[in-house]
Amino acid sequence: MSETTDHTPSYVTEGAEFNRDTNYIDDRILNDPNAQWPVEPGRYRLVAARACPWANRTIIVRRLLGLEDVISLGMPGPTHDARSWTFDLDPGGVDPVLGIERLQQAFFARYPDYPRGITVPAVVDVPTGVVVTNDFPQITEDFSTQWTEYHREGAPILWPEESRAEMENVMRHIYTEINNGVYRCGFAGSQDAYEAAFDRLFHALDIVEDRLSRSRFLMGETITEADVRLFTTLVRFDPVYFGHFKCNRQPLTASENLWGYARDLYQTPGFGDTVDFVQIKQHYYIVHQDVNPAQIVPKGPDLSGWLSDHGRDRKFGGSPFGDGSAPGPVKPGEEVAPAHTAAAWVS
Amino acid sequence: MSETTDHTPSYVTEGAEFNRDTNYIDDRILNDPNAQWPVEPGRYRLVAARACPWANRTIIVRRLLGLEDVISLGMPGPTHDARSWTFDLDPGGVDPVLGIERLQQAFFARYPDYPRGITVPAVVDVPTGVVVTNDFPQITEDFSTQWTEYHREGAPILWPEESRAEMENVMRHIYTEINNGVYRCGFAGSQDAYEAAFDRLFHALDIVEDRLSRSRFLMGETITEADVRLFTTLVRFDPVYFGHFKCNRQPLTASENLWGYARDLYQTPGFGDTVDFVQIKQHYYIVHQDVNPAQIVPKGPDLSGWLSDHGRDRKFGGSPFGDGSAPGPVKPGEEVAPAHTAAAWVS
Repeated sequence: MSETTDHTPSYVTEGAEFNRDTNYIDDRILNDPNAQWPVEPGRYRLVAARACPWANRTIIVRRLLGLEDVISLGMPGPTHDARSWTFDLDPGGVDPVLGIERLQQAFFARYPDYPRGITVPAVVDVPTGVVVTNDFPQITEDFSTQWTEYHREGAPILWPEESRAEMENVMRHIYTEINNGVYRCGFAGSQDAYEAAFDRLFHALDIVEDRLSRSRFLMGETITEADVRLFTTLVRFDPVYFGHFKCNRQPLTASENLWGYARDLYQTPGFGDTVDFVQIKQHYYIVHQDVNPAQIVPKGPDLSGWLSDHGRDRKFGGSPFGDGSAPGPVKPGEEVAPAHTAAAWVS
Repeated sequence: MSETTDHTPSYVTEGAEFNRDTNYIDDRILNDPNAQWPVEPGRYRLVAARACPWANRTIIVRRLLGLEDVISLGMPGPTHDARSWTFDLDPGGVDPVLGIERLQQAFFARYPDYPRGITVPAVVDVPTGVVVTNDFPQITEDFSTQWTEYHREGAPILWPEESRAEMENVMRHIYTEINNGVYRCGFAGSQDAYEAAFDRLFHALDIVEDRLSRSRFLMGETITEADVRLFTTLVRFDPVYFGHFKCNRQPLTASENLWGYARDLYQTPGFGDTVDFVQIKQHYYIVHQDVNPAQIVPKGPDLSGWLSDHGRDRKFGGSPFGDGSAPGPVKPGEEVAPAHTAAAWVS
């Protein structure tokens, strides 16, 4: 994100491809009492807007692993201005634990001249109020590998050692071609850049469609981190990327395996129960003024299909949690508003 | 369409509903030698951009009735500026019959101070170069009722006397709720105006979906003017209105009967062979800069489905042309570029 002189955030650079700034605060919270940031229950707060796909990953993984009682969750609203995500959904517009109105304050507490984007997810050290990390892929990996002592009974193994090398390849493809690929379409600054991005995205989706015609989940019979990373893009595809980002060769619902797979995950505890479709749409359509100047938020699409039978359990067998078990109900206070879910479309 | 002070055309008026200016030059060409504008082969030129749904109607009806050799066709390109449609596709950018670069010239030849929008379709009197009419619903009605002497052998009866009263009701519903309803969504100046327009549009489409579950065409077993008027909106629905105008409760392809019906017509000579999907997309996405500032034209959607079996002939019987016959091949020089058709998507 860059700023133009009139302080309207500008996402599209004329004539140019979109390039994501991937320079993050990359400290880690480690399972080591001598580390700068040691694992410690109750010490850290995850700040994650429901709207954001990168933040949505962390909300899913925290819940799948049962870390709700050891890492608290702060949730900025769906829209932000050129400077920061804000806690506009909280009473008084202030995060009740951190006592701040703007996430920017936690970044500035760490680095007073912090020059880059104020992004979610971010993990904040509650006693000092400083951001520890906003390095999203590392955050979820560390939830799996560093916080094991605090995982719930029956938590899934999201980073299985035996398939880790292949999973990293799959996740690289998902990140560069799909998670980021939709942004490359939507923020293209020229017709040529857009068309190249479109071809690249759908070529990548075709590869995954084929892979999912042969197995229930990306890495086999149970869910892994790779599924979390693909899911958060797929769940936004028809509500946002198809129209707003012009990723419109076909809707997700027209891809048999991707659509079945996405529904399978949506209906799995820990995935769909973290998804707020209204906040997702508001975020993209209101924040990207240079793509959608009138800031009208589409009322569609009809989401009732997300709850329909996908049949992948009968076709492929397997089970999302393998020998483990599904997480229980969503922690009170963290539920998605019923009117913001796919169920709201079921008449 | 109104102009802002910087001469960028503005389609969206903040805070307001969209209202179409329906004040046209409404002279008629009549089957009466003493009329101001009598029917006369070779005298008039229809100016109709393929991109425009209102103009597309006239191209379809002219071809269904076989009027190609008595009323010539001038075709402006898909985009226009704030002032006029232009003949930018013709050699030298000049219409070869009228000798003008801008359709505006024919309006000014009629009324030097013509204050309203320069719209297609327009019928121009070739000897004097003046616009006779741009009153689109009257133009197609008069093709059917005034030019009968010149209709081809086997031409369909598009205005059947016995069902005319009901047809006018159906066409009013289609015009106010659907043809214009998509624009009411796309040019809404507030979230409330948009949401009301969205509900009104899909309520209207649900009524037509139900009607088409009971008969092959809108008025029964053969095509009429009502089908022409619905078709030109349906064929633009997924390529344009779904994303660009946020008419996205569901794509056309998700409505069993509307989608089957639209394909039935597309595959009928006189309908699909007038449709230029590339020009259609270029028109909306490039002209409406206040909706799509970067003017990127979507590469999708995949259009191959338009040529798939619709099954409505077997389900409902009937025949588009009843006791008549289909028109022959498209007049040489008037063919849609192959790369701009649905067939271009069939691998």
